[in-house]
Amino acid sequence: MIQPKPPVFPSNITKYKAGAFSSNPDLLAVEEPLEIQLNLIDDEEIVQKTVAITMRTPGNDFELALGFLFGEGIITSMQEVIRIRYCESIKKPEEKGNVVKVTLRPHVKVNLQLLERHFYTNSSCGVCGKTSIEALELSGCPILSTDQFKIASQVLTALPDKLREAQSIFQHTGGIHAAALFDAEGKLVTVREDVGRHNAMDKLIGSHMQAPEVMKQLMVLVSGRLSFELVQKAITAQIPLIAAVGAPSSLAVQLASNYQMTLAGFLRNGQFNVYTVPERIV
Amino acid sequence: MIQPKPPVFPSNITKYKAGAFSSNPDLLAVEEPLEIQLNLIDDEEIVQKTVAITMRTPGNDFELALGFLFGEGIITSMQEVIRIRYCESIKKPEEKGNVVKVTLRPHVKVNLQLLERHFYTNSSCGVCGKTSIEALELSGCPILSTDQFKIASQVLTALPDKLREAQSIFQHTGGIHAAALFDAEGKLVTVREDVGRHNAMDKLIGSHMQAPEVMKQLMVLVSGRLSFELVQKAITAQIPLIAAVGAPSSLAVQLASNYQMTLAGFLRNGQFNVYTVPERIV
Repeated sequence: MIQPKPPVFPSNITKYKAGAFSSNPDLLAVEEPLEIQLNLIDDEEIVQKTVAITMRTPGNDFELALGFLFGEGIITSMQEVIRIRYCESIKKPEEKGNVVKVTLRPHVKVNLQLLERHFYTNSSCGVCGKTSIEALELSGCPILSTDQFKIASQVLTALPDKLREAQSIFQHTGGIHAAALFDAEGKLVTVREDVGRHNAMDKLIGSHMQAPEVMKQLMVLVSGRLSFELVQKAITAQIPLIAAVGAPSSLAVQLASNYQMTLAGFLRNGQFNVYTVPERIV
Repeated sequence: MIQPKPPVFPSNITKYKAGAFSSNPDLLAVEEPLEIQLNLIDDEEIVQKTVAITMRTPGNDFELALGFLFGEGIITSMQEVIRIRYCESIKKPEEKGNVVKVTLRPHVKVNLQLLERHFYTNSSCGVCGKTSIEALELSGCPILSTDQFKIASQVLTALPDKLREAQSIFQHTGGIHAAALFDAEGKLVTVREDVGRHNAMDKLIGSHMQAPEVMKQLMVLVSGRLSFELVQKAITAQIPLIAAVGAPSSLAVQLASNYQMTLAGFLRNGQFNVYTVPERIV
C-alpha cells in the first residue's frame, strides 16, 4: 500500500544574522503536485477523469480530494463515495503518492460541465510542477551565470522596509502581495502589487518587456512566501537572485538550485536565510 | 477607450479594538477576473484564443498580460507583439476592462501545446469569479441563517495564538498556510496545513465529510489573506463565520455578504474588523 509522502524536507542553508554567516540544517515545507482522479461507474463501464491537479503539501491527501470535490459541488456527501485510495499503477517512483483516485457509487450523477469548469481550478501552478520544470528545461532556458550580479548582505537587509514604503495599495488596504526589482546598490527600480502573488510577478516582468535584458542585472523581492512558480517566472526573465520576506517551498528551492539562481528567504529584521548559490551575497 | 478599473474599493466595516466596537470606512483590495486573449494572424485568418483567466487586482493589466505570456514562454520579446488593448466588444458593463487582447505579429509561431498547458495555469479561482458565484447561486446553496452561531469577541481574539500553537508543519518550516475549525467556546476542533491556502481549506472541509452538518455550528480561521475562493468553499460547507489573520479581498466580502456569512479580517493583536453580518459576534 502506498504511504503518504512526508510534508517536510531537510535542507542545508546559509544563515545571515547579526552580521555573520553560518551554515545550518533546516526543514522546508514540501510542495508537490496532487492529481485528483474520479472513477465514474455507469452500466458496467468505468470512466476515469482527472478533475484537478494542485500543488500541495503532502498529508491528508484523501481529505484534500474529498474536500475539493465537496467544496466544488461535484459530490454532495460521503454516501456517494465507495472508495478512495492512492493510484497503484504509477510507473515513476517519485510520483507514487501524488495521485488520488476517488470511486463514486454506480450511477451517481456528476455535472460534467462542473467538471470541465473545475479542471481549470488548479492552483496557480501549471498542470504540475514536474511538467513545468521539464517544460522550462525543454524550452532551452539558460542556466544563470554565478558571475552575474552580486549584492552586499547589509544592502539586502534594508530592502523589506523599502518595499513596504513603496506599496501604495497595501498602505490603503493592508492586504496585497508585492514584487519589486532592485539593483545591486539596493535602489528600487519597479514595484507591482496584486491580490495574487503570481500576478504581481507577471506585472513586474511585463513592465520590463521593452528591454528584458535589464533584468539580468537586477534582483527581485516578494512580500510573501516563495512558491515554485515565482521562481520559474524569475528564471524565464533571467533574474539572478530572488528574495522573499517569507519562506520558500521545497520545489522553489529545487528549481532555483537547478538554474543556479540565488534564493533567499525570511528576509526580515536584519537577517535572512540563503538556500542556493550564496556566492552572490557578499 | 476603456480605462483600467480602480484597484481599491470603499467599504464600511465594524472595528473591534480595546474592547469596543465602532463603525469605520475602509478600503478593500479589489479582486476581479482578467481574461488574457491572444490574437494569432496567419494567412489573413485571425485565430482568437483565451490563454488564461486569473483573479487579479486591476491596474497594470497590459503588463500582467505581457509578463504572463513572456514568463510562460508563449512570447519571447515585444517584437512579436503588434497591439495590446482592452477588448471593446464586451456587452456587460462590469466586465469592461477585464479582458485584454494581445495581437501577435503575423506568422509568429506559438507553441499551441504550451497554450493548452497554460490554459490550466489560472489562479486558484475557477475560470472566473463571476462564473463561480453564479455557479454557487445556481447550485441552490442555501443562504446562511443569522441565528446560526454566535461567538464572543474576546473568544475570537484568542484564536490566532491557538492556531499558531496547533500548526505543526509551520513550527518546523515557518512557511505554510493553515485553516482551522473552532467551536463557539473557542475550542480547536481541527487544523490543516498546506503551502496552498485553498488546499488547507479543502483538507479541513474534507476531514468532516463523514458528518458535514457539524460545520454549521463551527467557525473557520485562516492564517493568511481571504480570497473569494476560500469564502466560496466555506459557504458550500455552510460554515457561518470565516475569520482571517490577514485582509479580505473585495470579492470575498461581496460573496460573504450575498450569503449572510460573517467575515472578519485582521484578527490579530486583540483586535479585528468585521466586514459582513456583525450580529454573530457578541
